[in-house]
Amino acid sequence: MKKTLGIIGGVGPLATMFIGEMIVRRTKASADQEHMHTIIDNDTTIPDRTAYILDHSKPNPVPVLQRDTVKLASVGADLICIPCNTAHTFYDEMQEASPVPMLHMIRETAKRAANLGAKRVGILATDGTIASKVYQCALEEVGIVPVVADAQTQKLVMSVIYEYVKAGKDVMREQWQQIEDAMVAQNCDRIVLGCTELSIVNKELKLGEQYIDSLIVLAEAAILACGYELNN
Amino acid sequence: MKKTLGIIGGVGPLATMFIGEMIVRRTKASADQEHMHTIIDNDTTIPDRTAYILDHSKPNPVPVLQRDTVKLASVGADLICIPCNTAHTFYDEMQEASPVPMLHMIRETAKRAANLGAKRVGILATDGTIASKVYQCALEEVGIVPVVADAQTQKLVMSVIYEYVKAGKDVMREQWQQIEDAMVAQNCDRIVLGCTELSIVNKELKLGEQYIDSLIVLAEAAILACGYELNN
Repeated sequence: MKKTLGIIGGVGPLATMFIGEMIVRRTKASADQEHMHTIIDNDTTIPDRTAYILDHSKPNPVPVLQRDTVKLASVGADLICIPCNTAHTFYDEMQEASPVPMLHMIRETAKRAANLGAKRVGILATDGTIASKVYQCALEEVGIVPVVADAQTQKLVMSVIYEYVKAGKDVMREQWQQIEDAMVAQNCDRIVLGCTELSIVNKELKLGEQYIDSLIVLAEAAILACGYELNN
Repeated sequence: MKKTLGIIGGVGPLATMFIGEMIVRRTKASADQEHMHTIIDNDTTIPDRTAYILDHSKPNPVPVLQRDTVKLASVGADLICIPCNTAHTFYDEMQEASPVPMLHMIRETAKRAANLGAKRVGILATDGTIASKVYQCALEEVGIVPVVADAQTQKLVMSVIYEYVKAGKDVMREQWQQIEDAMVAQNCDRIVLGCTELSIVNKELKLGEQYIDSLIVLAEAAILACGYELNN
């Protein structure tokens, strides 16, 4: 039985369209009607997740995220995903409100890292995702040592996410190299791109095999969970 | 007052994600929350439009298209568009059923051609779009002579749309060149890419200035109609 996928988007908007494209490109199909039915709510009214995690006086995204699960289920979604790692800080609250099951992007990514035999995995993500420890916990649960960036590298990561990708500007290879070098120096055998804006960087710069792209992992998990096959 | 855009998608799925991306990339915004709220129903249950136009014993897409307008309005769309030229054959029936206004991709494209000073415009589209004469009428209404492809070239166009783009295969430059040469030989001063699958070809092959891409025209019209500015 094929399922309809609901995608809570807008977090950010470019990453939303990119996961949509990845789902289409990676589904085994040769006509429109063989593709997955997806409903995407590119809801740009969702308040910034990191801002709220770091300062609870800022607008709370949880009620909007919860409302969006109900909205998507009301128009036929059988399963929901949200292509925003930081929002997974509120996964339990969202799943509680959602009339249908939700995929867990971070647990799927940790599972992928374990399947690849990784032992020590770097996490590139927003300050909010790092502070909430969602990745650290998910990696430890599958027996992997999580490695976060040093404070200076983390600032570069946040700049790439907010001042470049979310602001519609291209990231340069040299800029990224500083981040990569710092993670390699920490002896990571794999590096998780744990923010969907960084998946846009991966798309543009074609980063290497050592990266695990959480957006691609989620796209593939969604295709399989909806009863479709991957296009090899 | 900003408006929420509903997009009836799935026709085809790759073009749906591409118009979503184009709307994000062309909107003037520097943070998630400054982008347009869009709701995309990538509805792959919509029957093939061309198949029905050419043979009314085939499944009728109209009731599904009408239902989708109601569905999108029910979750907050103030305005609807459909990134499928062929579906505009049924524009009047869709607009009649829709609780909210619908953009008209083909009229917007004809308007763009007129603004560019075109006099003789080639139409590259599906057999269904050509048979329904929606482009021919829209171009004539703005004083432009419409030019359709000869029978052999039209077959090449249909092959590119169905056997390549909709089937997830890349189109080669040489393959496209035959189509372009045939239209240039007919003395067209501009050529309309009047099928959103051909917009995917434009994205991949970076076709020249002589083309008017109906998907890009619709994306820009949607941004302006929803009260946002274009990113120059």
